[in-house]
Amino acid sequence: MVDMISMPDDSTTAVDRALDAVLTRLAERAIPRGAAALALIRAASDATTGGKRFRPALVVAAFDAFDGDRGATPGLWDVAAAFELLHTAFVIHDDLIDRDIERRGVPNVGGTFRSRARSLGVADDGADRIGDAAAVLAGDILLYEAARLVAVADIAADQRVPLFGLLDDAVLVSAIGELADVEQAVVPGEPETTQLLSTAHDKTAVYSFCAPLAAGAVLAGADAGDRAVLMTVGADLGLAFQLVDDLIGTFGSEAQAGRDAGADLREAKRTPLISLARETSAWPQVSSALALAPTGPIAVRAAQRELHESGARDRLVALIGQTLASVRRRATELPTEPRALIERLATGIEGRIP
Amino acid sequence: MVDMISMPDDSTTAVDRALDAVLTRLAERAIPRGAAALALIRAASDATTGGKRFRPALVVAAFDAFDGDRGATPGLWDVAAAFELLHTAFVIHDDLIDRDIERRGVPNVGGTFRSRARSLGVADDGADRIGDAAAVLAGDILLYEAARLVAVADIAADQRVPLFGLLDDAVLVSAIGELADVEQAVVPGEPETTQLLSTAHDKTAVYSFCAPLAAGAVLAGADAGDRAVLMTVGADLGLAFQLVDDLIGTFGSEAQAGRDAGADLREAKRTPLISLARETSAWPQVSSALALAPTGPIAVRAAQRELHESGARDRLVALIGQTLASVRRRATELPTEPRALIERLATGIEGRIP
Repeated sequence: MVDMISMPDDSTTAVDRALDAVLTRLAERAIPRGAAALALIRAASDATTGGKRFRPALVVAAFDAFDGDRGATPGLWDVAAAFELLHTAFVIHDDLIDRDIERRGVPNVGGTFRSRARSLGVADDGADRIGDAAAVLAGDILLYEAARLVAVADIAADQRVPLFGLLDDAVLVSAIGELADVEQAVVPGEPETTQLLSTAHDKTAVYSFCAPLAAGAVLAGADAGDRAVLMTVGADLGLAFQLVDDLIGTFGSEAQAGRDAGADLREAKRTPLISLARETSAWPQVSSALALAPTGPIAVRAAQRELHESGARDRLVALIGQTLASVRRRATELPTEPRALIERLATGIEGRIP
Repeated sequence: MVDMISMPDDSTTAVDRALDAVLTRLAERAIPRGAAALALIRAASDATTGGKRFRPALVVAAFDAFDGDRGATPGLWDVAAAFELLHTAFVIHDDLIDRDIERRGVPNVGGTFRSRARSLGVADDGADRIGDAAAVLAGDILLYEAARLVAVADIAADQRVPLFGLLDDAVLVSAIGELADVEQAVVPGEPETTQLLSTAHDKTAVYSFCAPLAAGAVLAGADAGDRAVLMTVGADLGLAFQLVDDLIGTFGSEAQAGRDAGADLREAKRTPLISLARETSAWPQVSSALALAPTGPIAVRAAQRELHESGARDRLVALIGQTLASVRRRATELPTEPRALIERLATGIEGRIP
């Protein structure tokens, strides 16, 4: 995501300052309430570090593209930071739901509190309970803080309701996508490709693309027509982004994926790519290769080869191409600068295809 | 809680209408996203039913006591309803943390989604994953909706920031109390009585007493001095309430407790009452009786008797009395009607002592 869009340094600083203000205020209120309270806020704060601030960058980029007046919109940075808090809350709760206690090789909130509990002499089951509780509560605090930041941001009074309309969908649609993702992983039988595509969209597109882009536009005073176009292109950008992510999880290098190459194959994840392969005549060979993929890197490479030869990979790349073509078509309705921003995002997503 | 405070019928209707509006709006947006999405909103909605609307009642009672102008404050009902949504979100996440899949004998969100998963052919571990995911997400949605409702409520612009100041503490202090509660249950060694008292306060007092009372006062235009008094008496009312709850969990009838009589003894819960007993010379007898309590109703009655004879029960009742005396002393600084409200609450809490 890094290279698709980046903020000028002064914007990064302003967003980070808004985030720091939230986290410092939480820490100051936690300190008098003891070590566990402070550890909870520290773990939540740690979860915000190392992020690329992609969603805040989209808010600011859309604001600038619609020629927003930064001097007249002091609340811009708080609204941008709110999307990072929302993202962090979702990541923490996603890890909890997936029973992951690490993220990118580092203990996450649940992992940190499991270690903390063990150092207090707590046995395994008790440490799991504490770890899970901390993950629930750290996510809750950051989710609440995201909403609070938008509620009290220094913005025009008539912008608050449209911004909350965007956050509403960001929260609800992501939750629905997350639940569908879990169900599709464990319900017997194979989900339809269309269902998998809709889940891929719901998990990411609204909160990572539609809502940040439209929020920047709202703050810049863009009209309702342009905002509606942003919502549509945001949905397609988000879907394309997620499908490229599936390609990376299957075919990407370790460096690109940020985890073992072919990790999705090792975990036998049900992705749109696999679903497309099932629709081809090569499925018997693909299926046998997939069954072996969890056994090691040679089997992973064989599965990658079969997926490629089945034509599923080409079909997914074609689908991504169509989705981005639709983005570009719709973007012609936008003024020059927002259109250039959307083009930059589409090109950035294409450039990540492994 | 029912009889401590109740709203006039028209207020109950107005709060329920505000809640219904939130839940209906969620359901309408979930329907196009499929059966699981609607089931999630239905489960979240079910979690709000049957509640006594105690926290909304406090908001409205404080508003009325400070002579708030209902006609000029259309957002009163949304703010009151927000506290019920916050409470429901906490209850859902509390059940998740405690690994409970029922509440008052009825399947909760996690229980409902476990059944739903099994009916889709999902095996046990998968059903647990789906149930836990649904509980995380339903709580997230309601927590967000609570904040949203206050953010967009039709209230005076200068009331929004003080209201969020109250919600901030309601969320943070409750989260800290919840985490401490889990830690005290599993960390080896016995927590100090003062720690248990502080957790009892943190889990409930701020979000159930201080914040709703002060929110009603903010909306009515009460001055900062009166609001500060409400925060102080709210903290003590909440502590006293929670301590009476411990007495009910230990000595209350099944009807009063809403679960098996002596349930806290069966579950060997670490309560301030037990902690007070440990400080008496009768602890060896109490301890032996407590060790047997999980075995059945006769042993529960023996443990109740030992706790009584140790003097721990009397000490806890005295502590509740002192806490409520402090409430009444502080309440003399309030105008007549708010003072009468606080008196009604104190009397109501005393009246629940089993």
